[in-house]
Amino acid sequence: MGGEFDYIAWLRQRTPPDPRVIIGLGDDAAVLHPPPRALLATTDMLMDGVDFHLAEIGGVQAGRKALAANLSDIAAMAGIPYAVLVSLALPRDCPIAGLRPRQLAEQIDEGIRRLAAEFDLPIVGGDTNSWHAPLAISITVLGQASEHGYVSRSGAQPGDWIFVTGPLGGSILGKHLRFTPRIREALALQARVQLHAMCDISDGLAADLFHILEESRCSAVLRGPDIPIAAAARTLSQRSGRSPLEHALHDGEDFELVFTVTEADAQRLLDDPPCPELRPIGVCLAGSPPMLWLEDEHAQRRPLSPQGWTHPL
Amino acid sequence: MGGEFDYIAWLRQRTPPDPRVIIGLGDDAAVLHPPPRALLATTDMLMDGVDFHLAEIGGVQAGRKALAANLSDIAAMAGIPYAVLVSLALPRDCPIAGLRPRQLAEQIDEGIRRLAAEFDLPIVGGDTNSWHAPLAISITVLGQASEHGYVSRSGAQPGDWIFVTGPLGGSILGKHLRFTPRIREALALQARVQLHAMCDISDGLAADLFHILEESRCSAVLRGPDIPIAAAARTLSQRSGRSPLEHALHDGEDFELVFTVTEADAQRLLDDPPCPELRPIGVCLAGSPPMLWLEDEHAQRRPLSPQGWTHPL
Repeated sequence: MGGEFDYIAWLRQRTPPDPRVIIGLGDDAAVLHPPPRALLATTDMLMDGVDFHLAEIGGVQAGRKALAANLSDIAAMAGIPYAVLVSLALPRDCPIAGLRPRQLAEQIDEGIRRLAAEFDLPIVGGDTNSWHAPLAISITVLGQASEHGYVSRSGAQPGDWIFVTGPLGGSILGKHLRFTPRIREALALQARVQLHAMCDISDGLAADLFHILEESRCSAVLRGPDIPIAAAARTLSQRSGRSPLEHALHDGEDFELVFTVTEADAQRLLDDPPCPELRPIGVCLAGSPPMLWLEDEHAQRRPLSPQGWTHPL
Repeated sequence: MGGEFDYIAWLRQRTPPDPRVIIGLGDDAAVLHPPPRALLATTDMLMDGVDFHLAEIGGVQAGRKALAANLSDIAAMAGIPYAVLVSLALPRDCPIAGLRPRQLAEQIDEGIRRLAAEFDLPIVGGDTNSWHAPLAISITVLGQASEHGYVSRSGAQPGDWIFVTGPLGGSILGKHLRFTPRIREALALQARVQLHAMCDISDGLAADLFHILEESRCSAVLRGPDIPIAAAARTLSQRSGRSPLEHALHDGEDFELVFTVTEADAQRLLDDPPCPELRPIGVCLAGSPPMLWLEDEHAQRRPLSPQGWTHPL
């Protein structure tokens, strides 16, 4: 038998039993105990040259990022990760000199496995291929709702306060590879208050908040001076010619969470924040189709474009 | 907002409500009612130049094949499909002249959607990307066990009879694009008898039966004259210089099912076959590590290599 099956045998040796898993790697499909609460499912495909540069970061970081981006989607629902499946299209001509597809696969697995272990997440399936083209990593994460239920994008209401879980902007300088998906933060928030709507910031704060506004059929105003700006946004600003605030509003891949709660719940969060970098940054307003405004330090409002990263199609 | 979000909006319009789905396309993750029985999960990534030639077959057939290959894995567990997620890496420079990524995406969706409708399967999530590289389609299908339970690769026992659901070989001449995944056949078989072990024939009969033997820790003998040979295997034989039987034993992508049952259950199936092309082709033997034998018309046995298609890594 060939390389693909040797690799699967190697993977199986590295994969311990898990109480959620009846049959894991090595059959036609994984067999799992169904979760007792709502089942979540998300998938993200990351590609060399688009989501990372393999030759610069190596397989371990590429694998880690691919899983982390998927886990961020589970966090955005306030979900608990349940199982992961990993599909690879490995380059036969690897941009890392001398690295064979099998070695690259092992590096990617290492990056995935370390992060999966942090979140007690079993690897239950996948598909390993090679081709004469760049690396693509496609991951599917299954999750389950916590005892407090899941959070969608569609529950924001006029008067809600808008929060983010951390400083924003300039992720491209490194955070996009090193971020920790906000699973624990989302669960801690959801245990404390009723999250009305939530989204992870993958496309950019303005763009992702706008997704919430579209689904919730309301508008919002952000207070510019209250938006927490990452140090990386200031660094990037010095070369980009754009302000640090613009980077915080529009840069993608911060993978923080943006969410809305009632004013009473907002006060509860401010009195005893369950995550240290939580910041209130604006409020929801009545009005659909949605409008998004940015308020400056003089309480002047201007329309804010929801521009962010999007795949041209 | 750009092309990616327009496309997601278009997909959502085409996607009807489904009783299994609480939140479908358009949030960070899908939210599903958990299935009442064991949850199945499988993923397969298909790539232009490896699994199909996009310029020859077009997006509709590429999408159909990608879903069909995944459904075949659910069939191999005797499972019922439950939900599907679709990730695309679309070429910005499409090998079909003049076809933009958005148009290609719509073609792929059409192929996926038609087959999904045949199996009453909701499309609940995905990720749509574009890049300067060939098309990759990564699909994850969730399933559930039927009331009769799932079937693994590991339950074959010495004395079991080995069956296939249809004629084999020469799939590359067309069946690999047009096959119907054997979901209904698997369920009909599982309702009638106790399937001990099952696998779909994606790598080739000998290779896939060998997977069953490895997991079940037994050996087997196939009777050459009893193996049903597809007309395409005879056609292909005329140009390949290999016998029709060799094609039936080793060609990949027939996507028929190979399974084992007790002799008593075998008789039950032969007396009143639940699928028309069912054929008994051999028996399981004691002996591990597994050996696979081929018996000719004179009852002479020779070792049969489990060679089949494998991705070089």
